[in-house]
Amino acid sequence: MTVIRNATILPMTEKNFFFRGDISIKDGKIFQIGNIDEKGDEEIDGSKMIAMPSFVNCHTHAAMILMRNFKDGKANLQDWLAEIFKIEDKLQDDDIFWASEIAAAELIESGCTTAADMYFYGWNTIKAFKKAGIRGIIGMTLFGDDKETRKRLETLPEMLDAEASDMFRIDAAPHAIYTCTRETYEAAADWAISRNAMVHTHLSETRKEVEDCIKEHGKTPLEYLDSFGFFRAPAYLAHCVHLTEAEIERLGDISTASAVHNPASNLKLASGYAPVASMKKKDVNVALGTDGASSNNNLSMIKDINLAALLSQPELSAYDILRMATADGAKALRLDDRIGTLETGKDADIVLIDTDQVNETPLNDPFSAVAFSTDRKNIDTVFCKGQKLLEHGRLLTIDKDEAITKTQEQWEKLLRR
Amino acid sequence: MTVIRNATILPMTEKNFFFRGDISIKDGKIFQIGNIDEKGDEEIDGSKMIAMPSFVNCHTHAAMILMRNFKDGKANLQDWLAEIFKIEDKLQDDDIFWASEIAAAELIESGCTTAADMYFYGWNTIKAFKKAGIRGIIGMTLFGDDKETRKRLETLPEMLDAEASDMFRIDAAPHAIYTCTRETYEAAADWAISRNAMVHTHLSETRKEVEDCIKEHGKTPLEYLDSFGFFRAPAYLAHCVHLTEAEIERLGDISTASAVHNPASNLKLASGYAPVASMKKKDVNVALGTDGASSNNNLSMIKDINLAALLSQPELSAYDILRMATADGAKALRLDDRIGTLETGKDADIVLIDTDQVNETPLNDPFSAVAFSTDRKNIDTVFCKGQKLLEHGRLLTIDKDEAITKTQEQWEKLLRR
Repeated sequence: MTVIRNATILPMTEKNFFFRGDISIKDGKIFQIGNIDEKGDEEIDGSKMIAMPSFVNCHTHAAMILMRNFKDGKANLQDWLAEIFKIEDKLQDDDIFWASEIAAAELIESGCTTAADMYFYGWNTIKAFKKAGIRGIIGMTLFGDDKETRKRLETLPEMLDAEASDMFRIDAAPHAIYTCTRETYEAAADWAISRNAMVHTHLSETRKEVEDCIKEHGKTPLEYLDSFGFFRAPAYLAHCVHLTEAEIERLGDISTASAVHNPASNLKLASGYAPVASMKKKDVNVALGTDGASSNNNLSMIKDINLAALLSQPELSAYDILRMATADGAKALRLDDRIGTLETGKDADIVLIDTDQVNETPLNDPFSAVAFSTDRKNIDTVFCKGQKLLEHGRLLTIDKDEAITKTQEQWEKLLRR
Repeated sequence: MTVIRNATILPMTEKNFFFRGDISIKDGKIFQIGNIDEKGDEEIDGSKMIAMPSFVNCHTHAAMILMRNFKDGKANLQDWLAEIFKIEDKLQDDDIFWASEIAAAELIESGCTTAADMYFYGWNTIKAFKKAGIRGIIGMTLFGDDKETRKRLETLPEMLDAEASDMFRIDAAPHAIYTCTRETYEAAADWAISRNAMVHTHLSETRKEVEDCIKEHGKTPLEYLDSFGFFRAPAYLAHCVHLTEAEIERLGDISTASAVHNPASNLKLASGYAPVASMKKKDVNVALGTDGASSNNNLSMIKDINLAALLSQPELSAYDILRMATADGAKALRLDDRIGTLETGKDADIVLIDTDQVNETPLNDPFSAVAFSTDRKNIDTVFCKGQKLLEHGRLLTIDKDEAITKTQEQWEKLLRR
């Protein structure tokens, strides 16, 4: 048993509720929380720490790490995608594996232990995440018409399942309404329902996407998906930047769908950013995601938390923002029975934030301290399902030097390919 | 002599220019830059580092560190100021000293070695900055009418000069057009000219400020200052969020005035943010500032760089953003003969950024890497005038534990006062 002693605990169960206390971890779960008399096999001094649920990243493309800071300064999503697609055509297994390992490392260093990925050759990402000790919701990316889609849905899951364990789930991820047909979306929805899985897609990311959708279908993107019953499958929708009031209203009524806010990526590609406060007013469940590192240019949940907090003033509180990154993220991925809050019986996915640093002094409101002031240097210790992945800011499950060298090598090979 | 060996050098002298090379430091200055044969007394391995000019923070209130994460969630600047003024009425020397020490520490950890401060009892800030080894441009805050102002301008400089050295300059800092009379601005301008100093003020921060100014003076804020010849004195203007096209045009014509962009603080207080791309198009010199930690909630130049980069897409490049934080900042403060670029003969104000970390892998464009991906954990080594202030992320001139304990104590005392 591990006991975190005398920490400032933000359980994220109730608005602005926090207390000073102890947390014990046993068999991967939160065993006790409050004042614990029993001594642990390992005792962690939490007296200068904030303890809270580790972060849930609801939209990323882990292996796009490779294109970090590459071809920056494009005018919009379309111009940028044109550059990215050229590289993606040449991707191979090893590229994905090493890039996913760097992605896992960066997620852990930013306090995150669950990521909903959408990319290619996902078995490599599962291998890398497994080694790192984090959870993955692996989205099989679907493009084009349903012929290609049905082929993928028949062959990919077997390859992914072979690598997966209880820390993983395979979801269907039709890329976007401008790259997939209606039939692809329908096949994805049916497949997800049949597997008790979910659908992960990009929606309403740019004004151009909305305009083109209206031109082609006479409907806005969410209305279009809705018109053929796509929301029969549970879904999480990345971006949601340009939703209309009517779409927000409708999304709030679909209890099985969530929006994922990706503020850094949306600003980076000059797309705008999601109307989070309006969505929350209409009871939309809003989660947070980093998107890929090539349009961010990070996989840092704490950076996106900082940014989401700044962009939402004065409508949303620091607590609201931290909910998006924890409990509401877990809910978006339908993992809220296991993670997202600190409660007895839940999996021990915990981040300890070191407040004994100059950038957290003086320590006033702990929610504000995390949402506005915390950065990667404050992320001290991270547990996922009770396994310690980071200790005093150092990665325990990943050989950092190897991962950096290999990823840099793969990227250089890929450029020459 | 200290030699930084084999670094990726961003001298910030020319758009997107960088090279791999060495930098030597002697007598506080950059002695050589390029390929250096001579061995240094100290050799620093820069092979996995980016070397660039350390950052220049052109608008802050260092000692407002005390109110970090305090009374967050106010609806606007006015409501927030009402809370802050209550605390500021009770400030004493020791509060300012210890808070300024934490401020200096946080600036150094974020790669910054020059700060333009605007606050009270500035002799304490000078003491703290001197101990820390950073440069200060100390703005004497002026409020109200010219009776109070003239008293301050007669008494304060002597107290400040007594503490200062060649690392400091004393500027006049009329708070804002809604807290100072025209006569106060005129007295500040005359005083600055007589001392070969500058004027530091808040301008056009909120829509309300602009509307009230039009109501009272029939002019927008910059027009109002211009109408009585305020710009005879060289000035730097914090915020500039709500400038009109005409004001931007006029500001571009005043070669002795600069705008200071404070993106985090402006978003935090829901004021909007400065139209940086428009200003740059009209040749306004735009610098970067953190503002105070109570409205940010950090004094991290690297965080404000990240944010400024995201908010300016696709108009501004990573290089443009880094210029704002270095050379253009130095120019705004009229320190560009000494700092802001890496060139032989300039003072050795240098930051080394550790790129051997997962969040900088792979390393593609180094300008993008700094502007978008770098955070405090990458800030490895910082020099100011040749003195090493930070080494492998650890403060060398500040006793971190003492500064944290003392600042926390002062804050608690202040709340009880």
